[in-house]
Amino acid sequence: MADTDPLVIFTPSGKRGRFERGTPILQAARALGVDLDSVCGGRGICSKCQVTPAYGEFPKHGVTVAADALSEWNPVEERYKSKRGLIEGRRLGCQAKVANDVVIDVPPESQVHKQVVRKRAEARDIVMSPSVRLYYVEVEEPDMHEPSGDLERLIAAIENQWEIKGVRSDFHVLKSLQPTLRKGAWKVTCAVHQGDESNPPRIMHLWPGYYDGSLYGLAVDLGSTTIAAHLCDLGTGEVVASSGIMNPQIRFGEDLMSRVSYSMMNAGGDAEMTQAVRDGMNALFEQVALEAHIDKALIVDAVFVMNPVMHHLFLGIDPFELGQAPFALATANSLALRASDLGLEIHPAARVYILPCIAGHVGADAAAVALSEAPNMSDDLVLIVDVGTNAEIQLGNRARVLACSSPTGPAFEGAQISSGQRAAPGAIERVTIDPVTKEPRFRVIGSDIWSDEAGFEEAIASTGITGICGSGIIEMVAEMRIAGIVDGPGLIGSPDQTGTDRCFADGRTHSYLVWDGSAEGGPKITVTNRDIREIQMAKAALYSGARLLMDKFGVDHVDRIVLAGAFGAHISPKHAMVLGMIPDCNLTSVTSAGNAAGTGARIALLNTRARGEIEAIVREIHKIETAIEPRFQEHFVNASNIPNAVEPFPILASVVTLPDLDFNASGDGGGRRRRRGR
Amino acid sequence: MADTDPLVIFTPSGKRGRFERGTPILQAARALGVDLDSVCGGRGICSKCQVTPAYGEFPKHGVTVAADALSEWNPVEERYKSKRGLIEGRRLGCQAKVANDVVIDVPPESQVHKQVVRKRAEARDIVMSPSVRLYYVEVEEPDMHEPSGDLERLIAAIENQWEIKGVRSDFHVLKSLQPTLRKGAWKVTCAVHQGDESNPPRIMHLWPGYYDGSLYGLAVDLGSTTIAAHLCDLGTGEVVASSGIMNPQIRFGEDLMSRVSYSMMNAGGDAEMTQAVRDGMNALFEQVALEAHIDKALIVDAVFVMNPVMHHLFLGIDPFELGQAPFALATANSLALRASDLGLEIHPAARVYILPCIAGHVGADAAAVALSEAPNMSDDLVLIVDVGTNAEIQLGNRARVLACSSPTGPAFEGAQISSGQRAAPGAIERVTIDPVTKEPRFRVIGSDIWSDEAGFEEAIASTGITGICGSGIIEMVAEMRIAGIVDGPGLIGSPDQTGTDRCFADGRTHSYLVWDGSAEGGPKITVTNRDIREIQMAKAALYSGARLLMDKFGVDHVDRIVLAGAFGAHISPKHAMVLGMIPDCNLTSVTSAGNAAGTGARIALLNTRARGEIEAIVREIHKIETAIEPRFQEHFVNASNIPNAVEPFPILASVVTLPDLDFNASGDGGGRRRRRGR
Repeated sequence: MADTDPLVIFTPSGKRGRFERGTPILQAARALGVDLDSVCGGRGICSKCQVTPAYGEFPKHGVTVAADALSEWNPVEERYKSKRGLIEGRRLGCQAKVANDVVIDVPPESQVHKQVVRKRAEARDIVMSPSVRLYYVEVEEPDMHEPSGDLERLIAAIENQWEIKGVRSDFHVLKSLQPTLRKGAWKVTCAVHQGDESNPPRIMHLWPGYYDGSLYGLAVDLGSTTIAAHLCDLGTGEVVASSGIMNPQIRFGEDLMSRVSYSMMNAGGDAEMTQAVRDGMNALFEQVALEAHIDKALIVDAVFVMNPVMHHLFLGIDPFELGQAPFALATANSLALRASDLGLEIHPAARVYILPCIAGHVGADAAAVALSEAPNMSDDLVLIVDVGTNAEIQLGNRARVLACSSPTGPAFEGAQISSGQRAAPGAIERVTIDPVTKEPRFRVIGSDIWSDEAGFEEAIASTGITGICGSGIIEMVAEMRIAGIVDGPGLIGSPDQTGTDRCFADGRTHSYLVWDGSAEGGPKITVTNRDIREIQMAKAALYSGARLLMDKFGVDHVDRIVLAGAFGAHISPKHAMVLGMIPDCNLTSVTSAGNAAGTGARIALLNTRARGEIEAIVREIHKIETAIEPRFQEHFVNASNIPNAVEPFPILASVVTLPDLDFNASGDGGGRRRRRGR
Repeated sequence: MADTDPLVIFTPSGKRGRFERGTPILQAARALGVDLDSVCGGRGICSKCQVTPAYGEFPKHGVTVAADALSEWNPVEERYKSKRGLIEGRRLGCQAKVANDVVIDVPPESQVHKQVVRKRAEARDIVMSPSVRLYYVEVEEPDMHEPSGDLERLIAAIENQWEIKGVRSDFHVLKSLQPTLRKGAWKVTCAVHQGDESNPPRIMHLWPGYYDGSLYGLAVDLGSTTIAAHLCDLGTGEVVASSGIMNPQIRFGEDLMSRVSYSMMNAGGDAEMTQAVRDGMNALFEQVALEAHIDKALIVDAVFVMNPVMHHLFLGIDPFELGQAPFALATANSLALRASDLGLEIHPAARVYILPCIAGHVGADAAAVALSEAPNMSDDLVLIVDVGTNAEIQLGNRARVLACSSPTGPAFEGAQISSGQRAAPGAIERVTIDPVTKEPRFRVIGSDIWSDEAGFEEAIASTGITGICGSGIIEMVAEMRIAGIVDGPGLIGSPDQTGTDRCFADGRTHSYLVWDGSAEGGPKITVTNRDIREIQMAKAALYSGARLLMDKFGVDHVDRIVLAGAFGAHISPKHAMVLGMIPDCNLTSVTSAGNAAGTGARIALLNTRARGEIEAIVREIHKIETAIEPRFQEHFVNASNIPNAVEPFPILASVVTLPDLDFNASGDGGGRRRRRGR
């Protein structure tokens, strides 16, 4: 490169260098280490290397770009444009050649390591770095004078044309290798798993000629109650479909401990449950692929997050040891497996990555939350609560992160509540109670109209009013407390005490009538004093876990609170604080992270470097076992009262209803609300 | 170590060093890098570290060893001796401690890398270095205050107690991990695959406590006609059982090309044949394990050698391309796979190693022959001929090695010969013909008595005389030539020309009557002129291949000839030379290597370093494709004559009848003769 050679400046990276006239832009980008994608290796086939030359004065860069800065539009570009279309002003980086000083913008979609922007301002963007990439190569034909295997020539082509070392092949590729090479006239597109510290890069699949499609990955959140799968395009990072099913293990027990018991009581019970969840998983994958109109065999990677019991059952390990002290995990570290090891029917060479578990009660789902919410990178002290059957709680900042699990039980999911139900159409999800009249008004899932507004009857005609879901019961109890229907210790007042006939004697205590649909053959929805007790127990457990971590951290106040979990997304922070679920905190500092575990899974799917990151984070997280901490019991005993301490509210924070996944994904699946608790 | 510390000298290594009094011998050995085995890590359990202290004057070593050179016999040794026995004079290296200057002999069975001595003087010994080793470890118990997975603590124990790095676990180990650790009270024996350049060490299996058994491996020679498996103890290197079955693919075609045709003509034909050979393999493994009275699940490694067509069919690759120029292999390199990838029912985490192929017609079996016979390390020029349906021929010395395959067809295996049959009881295998009377005398398989000796009739009563096997037909034709019954061009003379009525008109040519059993309802065994032609074709192909390599090497003479293959073991070198199968060579320099391919497989099984060695050798071997060499056709045309050039014989070499495997193995299976051609 002489000083008189044209200057090429790339944006947004700012990288610059002088190149001989006639150098293709793609080649210049590679020489400078500019992130410019290409699958065909500069043969004018794939169009992944599209760039936008900028013309005119660029005082900032100190150059003027003339109209003849690049070689003229060439026949390859012409053909490409006519066949597939090319955005105005775009050039193919492999065809356009340097002629004079030029400024070249690399649009996001032409970057391999493009950033996927997350909706929440405080959340980090994701840099794309998927485990599997496509490479188009031209392979030498066999020669009788120098015999060598087709595979060896294919590997040599990949290594030489793409500067990758030590490439191996998955066994099953051998079967299709010879016909595919010949069908493609010795030109093929290879899906290559990038490998990791203990695995070399590996050819997973071959297509004859240039493969013009995508590869897909699954981010799976395997909950005790539901399994949710997000199908992602491994090239763009988009969620192309999301789908969920009930965990088929529910028939063996609603909550985790009853499943552990089932395995203890029944020989082969764990194997039955393993089969059930794997079968369910395959049905779900079928469903999500169908939704996206793609072939399941294009799913080449999958990341799973789940609690420890689900972790073991999914892997085929008896969860026996997790049911008793010292709650020893069979393995805590992350796992990199073949999908076929788990009986998963996706691409036969697909890989599976399972995030590490933090402890016997704090699973890979909590690790995924840590990856998504990054408490270890927070300047202020953040409390992260993932509410489910167990609450996983993390507290920390850049200095350190503590974690524990607290046995909240299933009350927050509407179970063990007299009128409780899962979040489904017809369930009461939103409540206010007039402090004077003690009359409730509410909204049910499936309708945006409140019960005291016109059109409510019509709006709910198809579903009816069937019960109260988890977030509904929290609002209900909090509102009852605010309205003076329930006192601090948790007793529902008599009609005399409360001045409303909605309170009625019910055995030795009182209940509160929310809705009487019996005239139309519907249910009578009440809140009993026993319901209040269940919620008190659950919220005390949650609060105590958080307090325990605060004790260990040596603080009595947190800077902000993040509510994670699909359920967390629907909790009203105000009501959670009225109830005393979470420690006191400025309401504006209580946010929802949506399904943070699912987001963590997606991060690990799209960015393989994040896998090493979360493994390092988990090693640093300090685990607290609530079962052996006397302070936990102490907090628990003290936490059953319902404080009603935040009235009057400094700010009436609106209810948080973020969608499950917080990406600016174009697929509508990503933005769909999922209403069931995990 | 001070100068006054006692001196410890190990034999046979000669390694020496000074150690503080009280240092266990095992520890001293490890410090010096002496090869002293141990599975229990010095806990007095396994007795693998047995040593023999030597007492008295050792002028060569400059020491005098007093009776008190080692610590006294201790209770651990006492208990071990009473329970399991200990050879007189032996000590446990982990219990006996240095007290004064001492000379310690490490007997071969206490060496990890012991040498397995091969019977043939010219063959190298094998240094044991198997892929899987046993380690006994004590694992830390789980601690709720510092939660970690059982697997992570197990791996830490292996890494710390055995100084191995980067240990991983096979997925299926997870299932049994927790119960096994607890059953063994946190003491377990692990089978650990040692890994290789692209795979880390990997836990394959766990036993609670100390596992006092062996691990096994299979060396399998997958021939077109028969499959032979040798079951080896991976600790001692012994062959504990050998067994063979017919290749079940025979029903799809006797020879390789008819199987390739079957796959071309029948959709899914290759898959059928793959299934057939894998099923057969599993039946064979069942059989060989039963013979050795071991559990198949103790077989943790297997090495396979085979020709390219069998290679592809076994791997599930359509052999289509091998049936036509340019004879491209799907893959030529060695393969390291999981046994389960091939549907093999041995240990679920067992590994498989397949030797590299040399070219489209020269397979992994030829590579195994190269490993066993090491032409690349030969000072003199050696011609190695592996005779089967195809003959694989290698010619070389330290400077270079050439290889080719020659299409001999199945005549040498008794096929396409009018009275031909496979080598089985009743087949004529040895022949002489009186040059004067032209009367034949012969011996049949299953009897050691010649046909003109007393007791012959009784000896063959159970089998009868059923036909002529491959080695028999070679001797027969050669003897007919020597006796003047056949002329140089290959015509059988008339009764007038030969002076015997055994020659009789048979169509337009003559045949020779060997045996007439028709009076007793048996067959009439004759040699027709067409039989002579078949043998002429086969031997011309073999000879031409050898000559082609000699041309390429630029020589017209070889120093020695090695006949490999089970069939090669039964060929009489004299008759082979009379026939002109092999180039002229001093008869004393023609030897049989027995089943060299099987031996090569066993070397690769027992010594993982040999795998890298053969991969390097194969890269260096120069392949010649006979199909495109005009000189091959030329030689072939000139080679059909039967020379009879070696009469009178300088030395009447005795017929070579080495057993299949040439190891000093204690298992009787190793020494058993296998009579069928591969």
